[in-house]
Amino acid sequence: MAGLDPEDWSGIRAMGHQMLDALFDRMEHVGEGPVWQPMPQAARDALKTGFPEQGQSLEDLHDRFTDLVVPYGNGNTHPGFMGWVHGAGTPVGMLAEMLAGGMNANCGGRSHAANEVEREVIRWALSMVGMPEDGSGCLVTGSSMANFISIITASRAQDITLRSQGVGGRKMVGYAATTAHGCLPRAFDLAGFGSDALRRVPVLTDHRMDLAALKRMIREDREAGYIPFMVAGTAGTVDCGAIDDLAGIEAIARENSLWFHVDAAFGALACLSSRFKNALSGIEKADSLAFDFHKWAQVPYDAGCVLVRDGKAHAAAFAQSLDYLIREPRGLASGAPWFCDFGPDLSRGFRALKVWMTLGHYGSERMGQMVEECCDVAAHLARRVQTTPGLVLLAPVTLNIVCFGIDGLSDQDVSELVQDLHESGVAAPSTTRINGRLAVRAAIVNHRTTTADTDRMLDAVIALAAARRA
Amino acid sequence: MAGLDPEDWSGIRAMGHQMLDALFDRMEHVGEGPVWQPMPQAARDALKTGFPEQGQSLEDLHDRFTDLVVPYGNGNTHPGFMGWVHGAGTPVGMLAEMLAGGMNANCGGRSHAANEVEREVIRWALSMVGMPEDGSGCLVTGSSMANFISIITASRAQDITLRSQGVGGRKMVGYAATTAHGCLPRAFDLAGFGSDALRRVPVLTDHRMDLAALKRMIREDREAGYIPFMVAGTAGTVDCGAIDDLAGIEAIARENSLWFHVDAAFGALACLSSRFKNALSGIEKADSLAFDFHKWAQVPYDAGCVLVRDGKAHAAAFAQSLDYLIREPRGLASGAPWFCDFGPDLSRGFRALKVWMTLGHYGSERMGQMVEECCDVAAHLARRVQTTPGLVLLAPVTLNIVCFGIDGLSDQDVSELVQDLHESGVAAPSTTRINGRLAVRAAIVNHRTTTADTDRMLDAVIALAAARRA
Repeated sequence: MAGLDPEDWSGIRAMGHQMLDALFDRMEHVGEGPVWQPMPQAARDALKTGFPEQGQSLEDLHDRFTDLVVPYGNGNTHPGFMGWVHGAGTPVGMLAEMLAGGMNANCGGRSHAANEVEREVIRWALSMVGMPEDGSGCLVTGSSMANFISIITASRAQDITLRSQGVGGRKMVGYAATTAHGCLPRAFDLAGFGSDALRRVPVLTDHRMDLAALKRMIREDREAGYIPFMVAGTAGTVDCGAIDDLAGIEAIARENSLWFHVDAAFGALACLSSRFKNALSGIEKADSLAFDFHKWAQVPYDAGCVLVRDGKAHAAAFAQSLDYLIREPRGLASGAPWFCDFGPDLSRGFRALKVWMTLGHYGSERMGQMVEECCDVAAHLARRVQTTPGLVLLAPVTLNIVCFGIDGLSDQDVSELVQDLHESGVAAPSTTRINGRLAVRAAIVNHRTTTADTDRMLDAVIALAAARRA
Repeated sequence: MAGLDPEDWSGIRAMGHQMLDALFDRMEHVGEGPVWQPMPQAARDALKTGFPEQGQSLEDLHDRFTDLVVPYGNGNTHPGFMGWVHGAGTPVGMLAEMLAGGMNANCGGRSHAANEVEREVIRWALSMVGMPEDGSGCLVTGSSMANFISIITASRAQDITLRSQGVGGRKMVGYAATTAHGCLPRAFDLAGFGSDALRRVPVLTDHRMDLAALKRMIREDREAGYIPFMVAGTAGTVDCGAIDDLAGIEAIARENSLWFHVDAAFGALACLSSRFKNALSGIEKADSLAFDFHKWAQVPYDAGCVLVRDGKAHAAAFAQSLDYLIREPRGLASGAPWFCDFGPDLSRGFRALKVWMTLGHYGSERMGQMVEECCDVAAHLARRVQTTPGLVLLAPVTLNIVCFGIDGLSDQDVSELVQDLHESGVAAPSTTRINGRLAVRAAIVNHRTTTADTDRMLDAVIALAAARRA
């Protein structure tokens, strides 16, 4: 009996090599063809087979994948993709996923090398942002989970009895700017504090948190009987890439004995650039930090990361003791602390390998250079917006995000224009609302995007806008 | 400028094929050599390079991976691995991870084919357990997260104001047997109810939940002013594989207007076997269900799944509206509801592909047969335990888990014996505590494990026990 393994390995091996060649063929030509195209109903229907009773050959499944899935991708590997905040991946990351799939490690615990690779990339992450090397951390799905883990850790550091007794009547509150990412109020929701318990601090005209307002809000909450326990700064807001005054927030956090958290979902990578490092000053003082390797670090999805300055506080918030998970001094069940002591998951894939191979292959210098190249493309785009009649830059370009309005078009028009642009296959920006106005938003997170791509996008916007105005 | 892509693709393509051949070489001989061996300190130290400033060649990184990581794996791909509850993976799953890494889709939202594949595998999962096909669900890291999502959904179905207002003074409680997995009290901890709010219902001598006790506890909690909102049954307890009386629990849940959740982390797959299907009766009535594809379905880590009967309740618990995530009627930003409306993650890898390819390639019939083969191996092991003097079966073998004691050895001896066994490389069972006594625990979740492997494990245990007794 060979279980599910093939009797004859040569067939699947040959098939694997065919698949790999097809992957490389597509990667080599990733910039050709449309950024995105709608998936036809026929393709959607063709996927609805039901759970087959009899297995299908790998050849058939790969053909179906090639015909029904590949042409209708997300678009984020294409240089014309500028929507949301999506990394583009690399062939190195793809190969690392293949290797990790073959090892099939569960990085929830136990003593094995995949965990050591994860420990190493956590050390790399700590050094990247300047946090102490004895901090802790773990890889997670993404910043939503990393922010949630941070809120859990921060609250348990304030009151460990939360773990067994729950929130109960405790009126615990935290703070983040109105521009902070929606996953922060969601984390307060999921953690049982309620999204209202995340106080939203107004921003100044530069889109950065108003620190005077933060101080006032903390004081007023205290006076009203609330228990402030944390404040989150953002290093690279999702709407326009603004960076809160992290050092200023940290000082207020210390004065008030609050946990200082930083959401640096994509911004953390800018620490690798000498040009932008200063703008992030204070990030190294974070008590906890959330960011993604699958965004600006170009590691394939998903690969988020949470870092915590005080590893003991981190473990105290999550570690459990379970009979069947007894930790031993030696053997397979040794190697404590385990990564399941630092987050909610007992089952954890080998995310660390794709991070290790990507950062290890390109190195910190090249990664920092790539970050700067993205920002250069954004700066070029911003200049073109500013010199184009009828277009208006809606927010300062701090890093790699350009938000612009189109004069003479309603919000509804702008929204439809961007849908037209998507359907044209030329480029894929997204939209957001800046000071109440709908903006076209181009986030240059993709290492493949050049000024030729942003020029093509802008030319298309200008033509579509003219057509709509007419 | 080519971003991070290579100037010359032929080198990395050749390297990819080399890596793939090395993977297949290892997979073909996965049963040879030790199940596990400790990672030497020299290998651990060699991984501590720090974040390199200059990149290293892919060849060098692959050599380091081959030398430092591969030999010191988790062991779960080896037929001698019987510890915890680990799937073994398949070459099909490995190739699917490679393909998914190349697509690099973010399945948090938007309109693209990877989401349609996920929708399809969710339909397969619903049909597998017999839940209505209009239910909802999503793929997650694992059952820990799937159980957490279920608790969040159940509580929000009871009181949607929890999302904004938090737990506050609400005394909400839930129920699960003492044998339920530790991730359930952890979910109550993380959700802000506190782990104490998950009442632990005693079990009968058959290791199944005592339903009379459940009824009494609900009544007593109500009388004491608590608000019972959910009850969790377990289909396959982690210690010994017992299956709660799901239909009985469901009836009590309906009488008391409680949400009926099932943790079927590995047991869900037994629905594919006509031999075991009846034992799981009632699972099809679950309001929510958590299970893993990376366990008995042999999909590579990580691939958990949560299913919810009432998709509207599911979305109501998680959906958010964010300006930059505006959902449109057409274009890339269409396709609502998005998977980020069904769980905490906005960034989500393309887990669905490895599920789709694995289940699609083997088919439901072969998967059910594989489940039965694992149970046959467990039954064989149990018979040998029962006929071996000095060994004692500590729990009935319902499915695929065998727990046995070793007479004449203290708990400490048993623990050390299992560590010796791990270090011998012969086999890797784990341990657990059954009725207070430390048990050797063999969970046959690995499709490669045969009776020859369990015989080898048991022979080694017998020899090690004799040596310790002497």
